[in-house]
Amino acid sequence: MVKDCSTDTVAQAVREYEGVTRKRVIGDMVRLLRMESPDVVASFGEDAAVIRHNAEDALLLAADGIWSRLMEADPFWAGYCAVLVNVHDIAAMGGRPIAMVDILSVTNDLIRDEVTRGMVAASRQFGVPIVGGHLHPETPYSVVDVAILGTARMDQLIFSDTAEEGDVVVAAIDLAGRVHPSCSFNWDSVTMKSAEVVRAQIRVMEDLGKEHLVTAGKDISNPGVIGTLGMLLEVSEKGAVIDLEAIPRPDLSAIGLPFEHWVRMYPGMGFILTAKEENVKEVCRRFSDTGIAAAPIGTVDGSRILTVRYLGRETQVFDLDHNGIMRIFTEGGICR
Amino acid sequence: MVKDCSTDTVAQAVREYEGVTRKRVIGDMVRLLRMESPDVVASFGEDAAVIRHNAEDALLLAADGIWSRLMEADPFWAGYCAVLVNVHDIAAMGGRPIAMVDILSVTNDLIRDEVTRGMVAASRQFGVPIVGGHLHPETPYSVVDVAILGTARMDQLIFSDTAEEGDVVVAAIDLAGRVHPSCSFNWDSVTMKSAEVVRAQIRVMEDLGKEHLVTAGKDISNPGVIGTLGMLLEVSEKGAVIDLEAIPRPDLSAIGLPFEHWVRMYPGMGFILTAKEENVKEVCRRFSDTGIAAAPIGTVDGSRILTVRYLGRETQVFDLDHNGIMRIFTEGGICR
Repeated sequence: MVKDCSTDTVAQAVREYEGVTRKRVIGDMVRLLRMESPDVVASFGEDAAVIRHNAEDALLLAADGIWSRLMEADPFWAGYCAVLVNVHDIAAMGGRPIAMVDILSVTNDLIRDEVTRGMVAASRQFGVPIVGGHLHPETPYSVVDVAILGTARMDQLIFSDTAEEGDVVVAAIDLAGRVHPSCSFNWDSVTMKSAEVVRAQIRVMEDLGKEHLVTAGKDISNPGVIGTLGMLLEVSEKGAVIDLEAIPRPDLSAIGLPFEHWVRMYPGMGFILTAKEENVKEVCRRFSDTGIAAAPIGTVDGSRILTVRYLGRETQVFDLDHNGIMRIFTEGGICR
Repeated sequence: MVKDCSTDTVAQAVREYEGVTRKRVIGDMVRLLRMESPDVVASFGEDAAVIRHNAEDALLLAADGIWSRLMEADPFWAGYCAVLVNVHDIAAMGGRPIAMVDILSVTNDLIRDEVTRGMVAASRQFGVPIVGGHLHPETPYSVVDVAILGTARMDQLIFSDTAEEGDVVVAAIDLAGRVHPSCSFNWDSVTMKSAEVVRAQIRVMEDLGKEHLVTAGKDISNPGVIGTLGMLLEVSEKGAVIDLEAIPRPDLSAIGLPFEHWVRMYPGMGFILTAKEENVKEVCRRFSDTGIAAAPIGTVDGSRILTVRYLGRETQVFDLDHNGIMRIFTEGGICR
């Protein structure tokens, strides 16, 4: 049983969480940036852009930055996360991360060295080299941005916008971790793991893509597990009902975390997926083999509404038809 | 004749220019970041990193950001330049630019829209789509960072560190432009040109690479024509003597620009190259066919000193053996 939990509390907490509301500006940007290009198979709305390289191969390109508040609170963890979120972006697409570049603006040498130490730690652990970049020294602010190149076969890609009615929603989160001391919304399950373990966890997505075991997927990012599912459903133009009790979670009472806090956390290793009923067991097994807890948490439907359910009570979190999260598609076509 | 020009004035102006001195911090960063990786053919010290994709193909990855002062002065031009410098990075390697991602931090919506308008203008003009990115809304600062993916055949790559003794130094700059109204160190030769013209200019480098007409090359960036040549010589572990009078320049007296200002400018389209004597005429012809003025300006030697010459007088600009520009190699091995 999920302690002190009501569907209303959780729905409101997720809906009003800054990790979710900050996504609303994306749509405006995308409408400005979009450009027709025959080799661009997917772009905005996916975790990484997909560019057709030849008949069989795709190149993946993504970029991500770290909230300035994390950069100020803990530059090492900010550097580490800058790499982590980029590796997640490629893994989420079923691809293999190849190399990264970083762009660093720093107010002083101490921050520069700590951010760099964090990036290097994650780069070595995940085995993805940082091959270049740009440094702005002595800026009035400190920012770390990273971009990543990945590769995949065209037929192993996992997209966000391909969930179908009747698919099972699977949440996969590594629960063996800790609330990060520098950020109460970061669930760190990675810094204490070996390179072998985290690389195996990342490879699960590549294998799921190659074997066509899932229909759609995203890495769980700042909006948390429910917010990220909302984004997946938004671009898939679908809805879902999920059971709060089914969401994998550590012993929350032992660590004093309210459930509505847990579902908003950014997990060090977490993915939200949709799969055909007959593949759910195998998908969950692949994750659990690498120490990630994975479970079916609900079902995709055609409603375009994401609803949470607990103890027989249901509350709507997002009405994606009238009030999207990223709002990419309200005035444009679909992104691919 | 170059008006009011002395080799001392020019040498000192280049040596002390912030565009040059800001490069000194690169070395420290690179020593921290470097990681052995068998497929990474080139990384730091080159305009773009080169990753072997298969026996014949290379993937290029680069990232660049825009000085905050330009972002504050003219967000449209900052956005335009963020794309421009990235396209240059791929062209400089003899590659073809494929796609970009951007990471934007903005204090307000006006800056966001202007930066985006600038990026979109350059993206459309050069025909390189922006396929994704990340937006930090409502930050206390405004930063635009862009990363770019390019492709090339392994045998068409142009590197910075391959200049050889006896090679001729060629400077290629599009002189048909203006001092940009928002930044006196930017020579804008691009915003007034058609897509056809700028794309043809960018393709010259790809052709020079395919036909092996140059031995090394870089795009002329913030350090200006002499500073950029210094960086090329630094990573090639060579020196050179160049004639100031031979450097292509517009009618400086007509626009009231001192020569030592001109050589520090960032040109909208400019490359510094080295070539075998027998190919110099053809290299210059390729550039001039697209409206770019190109000329031999000196000769590579083994001195590891960059010297400027004018009216029989010579002054040393950089002693690269004792006092490098990027200082990438003082404690590490060569970058590839």
